[in-house]
Amino acid sequence: MLELKGDERLDYLLAEKLRIIQSPTVFSFSLDAVLLSKFVQIPIQKGNLVDLCAGNGAIPLLLSTRTKGKITGVEIQDRLFDMAKRSVEYNQLLGQITMIHGDIKDIPNEIGYDKFDVVTCNPPYFPTPSQDEISQNEHYAIARHEILCTLEDVVRVSSKLLRQGGKAAFVHRPGRLMDILSLMRRYRLEPKRLQFVYPKEGKEANAILVEGIKDGSPDLKVLPPVVVYNDKHEYNPEIRRILYGE
Amino acid sequence: MLELKGDERLDYLLAEKLRIIQSPTVFSFSLDAVLLSKFVQIPIQKGNLVDLCAGNGAIPLLLSTRTKGKITGVEIQDRLFDMAKRSVEYNQLLGQITMIHGDIKDIPNEIGYDKFDVVTCNPPYFPTPSQDEISQNEHYAIARHEILCTLEDVVRVSSKLLRQGGKAAFVHRPGRLMDILSLMRRYRLEPKRLQFVYPKEGKEANAILVEGIKDGSPDLKVLPPVVVYNDKHEYNPEIRRILYGE
Repeated sequence: MLELKGDERLDYLLAEKLRIIQSPTVFSFSLDAVLLSKFVQIPIQKGNLVDLCAGNGAIPLLLSTRTKGKITGVEIQDRLFDMAKRSVEYNQLLGQITMIHGDIKDIPNEIGYDKFDVVTCNPPYFPTPSQDEISQNEHYAIARHEILCTLEDVVRVSSKLLRQGGKAAFVHRPGRLMDILSLMRRYRLEPKRLQFVYPKEGKEANAILVEGIKDGSPDLKVLPPVVVYNDKHEYNPEIRRILYGE
Repeated sequence: MLELKGDERLDYLLAEKLRIIQSPTVFSFSLDAVLLSKFVQIPIQKGNLVDLCAGNGAIPLLLSTRTKGKITGVEIQDRLFDMAKRSVEYNQLLGQITMIHGDIKDIPNEIGYDKFDVVTCNPPYFPTPSQDEISQNEHYAIARHEILCTLEDVVRVSSKLLRQGGKAAFVHRPGRLMDILSLMRRYRLEPKRLQFVYPKEGKEANAILVEGIKDGSPDLKVLPPVVVYNDKHEYNPEIRRILYGE
């Protein structure tokens, strides 16, 4: 029996296949998480996957539709961790998804080094916020800003978790492209696939998707662009397919 | 009176506005040069521009349609330099374009440090070729491979030539994205505008255009994608506009 707390609601995720608990007062999953879940290359029949900064669990839930492998989600915020856990339970995915409440920086010690096949992360995008913004809504501030984990933390921890040949996939803002590529190379996650997301035709990109291979050889491919909306501000067919399976 | 030598022919450049001497046995200008000439942001009324690895002069000629500033082209290969010089003369652009026959690595000593507004370069794309390829056609080998100048040479020399706030724009292959971005940052040419060129919809990018500002602040924008061909292998409208002014 699902318990919804306070202002939480049970939203749809991927048409009617999955449901996810969300709340207007904490950070909700975004299209970025959906695109990352679709972008990353994962083993189908088995494997060990980790999602860092998992929030309310959107990426672990979405990945569960693409693989039979085991998925671990890590989230530091009580409230989001609790929502993710209940969503996993509601979708009867306790056998496949394990949510861990903790700091990603401690996670390799807890779940092991050099053994995972895939790490994903939709990290906080922005540098440290003002005290004002933090006091207005701490949940948002932590989810959006590099307060509890920086991009370097994410990349370093991902590299520790992955086996050689394992894949790390991240979504971020184009303004951080150089940082993310150089951090990935520094921490042995050689960037191999890069894709840009444009809100609509003729606009600048507003998200980047990047995947690296631990100890891979340098050979970066830039995949076809993703354009989210058409001129009428409707989702383009590719996005509708991803979101609704149409 | 124009003298065409050996197998040279006089080709059109930008519909009928300009003509350019080309030869099937040396490297001809490519769409990459045309796209770079269009991509780079340049002053309209005046300014000092340099094109490195100028080949048969396509980029200096193309830039002359966008600015009244002075343009210097630098080319190391005799044959290409000679073709470029005659094309400049044929188009009656001797007052605006100066071709220099020399090695880009010596150029700052020759034409000055920290004084140019814009530097462009469509450099050799590939690492060192086999002896076989060099002996088959030295002109092609030098134009295509990093034999006489490496990407690092190009970026370092560009930075020396530019004034603070001056712009450097390059075209290269996506596989070298990380190298070019990190070299630019290392030599104080902060990447500000990045654009990917895709041969057609649904295909991986095959060229990147990047512009940096000397001593600029970090803030990278990813411009809308350029898609060259439609499904029938005809140029898309954007490309036709650039090439033919349609």
